[in-house]
Amino acid sequence: MQNLPLYKQLADHYLNAIRCGTLKLGDRMPSVRKLMHVHGVSLSTALQLCRQLETEGWLEARPRSGYFVRQPRRVRLIPAQEPTIGKIIDPAQFVGIHEKVSEIIAQGQRQVKCNLARATGGPALYPHQQLRSLTVSTLRRYPELLTKTITPGGNRELKAALAKRALDSGISTSADQVIITNGCIEALNLALRAVAQAGDVIAVESPTFYGLLQVLESLGMKALEIPTSPSTGISVEALELAMRTYDNIKAVVVVPHLQNPLGSMMPDQHKQKLVALCEKQGIPLIEDDSYSALADGDKIPTALKQWDHSGNVIYCASVHKILAPGMRVGWILAGRWQERVNMLKYAHTRYNEELSQIVTATFLLSSAYDRHLRKLRSSLAVQREKMAEAIATYFPEGTRVTMPAGGVSLWVEMPAGTSSRAVFDAALEESILVSPGLMYSNSNRFDHFLRINCGMPYTQDLDDAMRLLGRIIQHQASSKQHIAA
Amino acid sequence: MQNLPLYKQLADHYLNAIRCGTLKLGDRMPSVRKLMHVHGVSLSTALQLCRQLETEGWLEARPRSGYFVRQPRRVRLIPAQEPTIGKIIDPAQFVGIHEKVSEIIAQGQRQVKCNLARATGGPALYPHQQLRSLTVSTLRRYPELLTKTITPGGNRELKAALAKRALDSGISTSADQVIITNGCIEALNLALRAVAQAGDVIAVESPTFYGLLQVLESLGMKALEIPTSPSTGISVEALELAMRTYDNIKAVVVVPHLQNPLGSMMPDQHKQKLVALCEKQGIPLIEDDSYSALADGDKIPTALKQWDHSGNVIYCASVHKILAPGMRVGWILAGRWQERVNMLKYAHTRYNEELSQIVTATFLLSSAYDRHLRKLRSSLAVQREKMAEAIATYFPEGTRVTMPAGGVSLWVEMPAGTSSRAVFDAALEESILVSPGLMYSNSNRFDHFLRINCGMPYTQDLDDAMRLLGRIIQHQASSKQHIAA
Repeated sequence: MQNLPLYKQLADHYLNAIRCGTLKLGDRMPSVRKLMHVHGVSLSTALQLCRQLETEGWLEARPRSGYFVRQPRRVRLIPAQEPTIGKIIDPAQFVGIHEKVSEIIAQGQRQVKCNLARATGGPALYPHQQLRSLTVSTLRRYPELLTKTITPGGNRELKAALAKRALDSGISTSADQVIITNGCIEALNLALRAVAQAGDVIAVESPTFYGLLQVLESLGMKALEIPTSPSTGISVEALELAMRTYDNIKAVVVVPHLQNPLGSMMPDQHKQKLVALCEKQGIPLIEDDSYSALADGDKIPTALKQWDHSGNVIYCASVHKILAPGMRVGWILAGRWQERVNMLKYAHTRYNEELSQIVTATFLLSSAYDRHLRKLRSSLAVQREKMAEAIATYFPEGTRVTMPAGGVSLWVEMPAGTSSRAVFDAALEESILVSPGLMYSNSNRFDHFLRINCGMPYTQDLDDAMRLLGRIIQHQASSKQHIAA
Repeated sequence: MQNLPLYKQLADHYLNAIRCGTLKLGDRMPSVRKLMHVHGVSLSTALQLCRQLETEGWLEARPRSGYFVRQPRRVRLIPAQEPTIGKIIDPAQFVGIHEKVSEIIAQGQRQVKCNLARATGGPALYPHQQLRSLTVSTLRRYPELLTKTITPGGNRELKAALAKRALDSGISTSADQVIITNGCIEALNLALRAVAQAGDVIAVESPTFYGLLQVLESLGMKALEIPTSPSTGISVEALELAMRTYDNIKAVVVVPHLQNPLGSMMPDQHKQKLVALCEKQGIPLIEDDSYSALADGDKIPTALKQWDHSGNVIYCASVHKILAPGMRVGWILAGRWQERVNMLKYAHTRYNEELSQIVTATFLLSSAYDRHLRKLRSSLAVQREKMAEAIATYFPEGTRVTMPAGGVSLWVEMPAGTSSRAVFDAALEESILVSPGLMYSNSNRFDHFLRINCGMPYTQDLDDAMRLLGRIIQHQASSKQHIAA
């Protein structure tokens, strides 16, 4: 932060004094003259310092008395706006998202000081030591593992372990049904290719993970965005309306738990209705369940797949977010498309490397996995709290933020009109990476949102970055108002 | 082999005596009466024994004198037949290969005593100890490798190492141009998806690797099979003719070196003509160069890509066959489709796991890699020789076999009319897995061929299996003649 202009450095200095209680609520801020004297700065710098803290809500100016410490505004920790249901659904469109976001993704691949764009936890949250020693012992157990032909059809131990763990989500399946993939993204590709073709319409949540929109685009499919609530997930009513309006929907893709980016959780009743609706309409339902193990509490939420009695639900998941972001172990339960997905996986990428499969299997079957999950969930809960607090403290008035019941992200609605693209650019200048809302939809409905990662421990550096980000948003929000005015 | 009928066990006993010189050329075989007495077997068993060895060509019956050891027939070690060029090319067809071979692939996933269906060497041919210790040291060097987010865009060290090694194939490229994939099969998928769509016609070699036909089928593309010579590879003349006949060919896929299954090597002049033809016609040329490092001699053959001046050649390869069948490290140089392939790879499977990328990079950059290749090539040369010898010795008259200048497979033409499917079934009964010719084409042109792996050291067990396989083919070939007569 040494590159900050002098007035901002001084503003930070006094902000620290306020936050640690050296300057209390109602205290008078040193006068401008005193500030000039003490810090050897110009009048303009001293004034900028005070105005900065005023803008951020830490000081209030009283006529002829100077600046006083005030109770800062706090951002309302309430969900981002509920979508309007019942209005006409946007027409399905060929996804043009890649062009829209490829530059953002490319820029995001730079090394930055603070990466808030991830959808995983930081490395410290995952059992790297245990996975490392399992890797070494697996190689000892199977000395030729790297050089012998990979066991066809996926590693048996892993398939059995995943089938066993799926019980926790209410899914009753067998090892034979499990198809191992390169992460959840390959699972989604296979699922979509199994049930639909180029030109077909796929119903998705809105906002939805840009990765899904990219997959649709790469497959030449059209996305139909269905309003989705930050608290209860996709609107089953809106989906039903869409199915009445469009007769060419070939699949529905849903993240029922800790939806990305909203963090919403579908109530069980909604899940049942959704499964029944899709079955009745004969439209395959693709469930992306990558996050459910990160939900607060000890009970893993029940998968849509539990209510599936006809094989109409294709279940996709991975260990990427919950066990090891460096490992590409995903899987799929393909219901009545089992044979076709098996064929596609074989033609697509053959089988996954066996080393990480066996390591994952061994860990999943151990009690260390349960301990890991408990620790992971409680660390994430603390970190989410801290990040929400930072947003409440530093982000400008008019910001809204959803507190999801688990997971690694917060979905932040900035004051109306604030451009997430402009915030992205300005933050990147300061070596802070955020995930702008415009990536999560083909509409411009989420252009003033950000997805903020909370997978990292809340350190002083992170606090500095959040404060700086708050200022950037403040700046963008007020310049927007300026233009509007 | 304890399960063999008694007469076959005894036939093996006498065959050994013949092969080690105890019974010499022209020697009289013990009489049937003596065989009955010595082995305590029935007349019928003794007769069956002699007839078996007669059928296999080791004995000849002389009227009223009994059986005598004869010079066995030897299979001609000449290439399988050259294709007929100039005739009308088969119409392009939607590949129906998966249905045709899925059952064969599924059956081939059983544990067998002798697997001759692989297209890789046995594990002993690859540096498993070195790769293992590199894995362990890599984890020591990057303790959080399994749990931190994967470096975007593929591991830099590996991309640099591959660019450097590509120089040996005459390719001048940079690390930036290298896109890492899950094996060569993902590279082929991405290349095809970059340049063509469902319904498009793709020109392929005939015979060609069934994996490629499956990829085309899974993408809804049509295969146009171009006659391909067992010695010089795809016929550029036939391809030119096809391009005149069909105006909708969207890509050409070629394995210029050690073609799978033929083992053919394109002469440099053909390669240049092919590159120029495709460029002139504006048809993308996809090169699968998975095997070239297995070619005899110290010079790696020059890739098609070397003659590519317009970015019209997409180069695909992997370390699967040459370094580690258990690792899924492939790569692609996508020419003028670089950006599109990058996007497709990201949407397809994100990035490969980093552990095997770093291990591969480290090994490729060491001199151990050159030593490994030299050893691998010379082991394969010995093993190919032994297998060809076994085929010459045990397979029935009328068999032809190509001796490729490198690689892990022999392409065997059985006597006309012999069904490779029947041989596959009968061999599997004996726990021997072969790769039937019918998998390598949509036509029935190769139904009497087998691809035989020669990646394993030639042991007594393997010799037993080859002898048994020879008998099976003999049986199928003569039963076919029987039906024909």
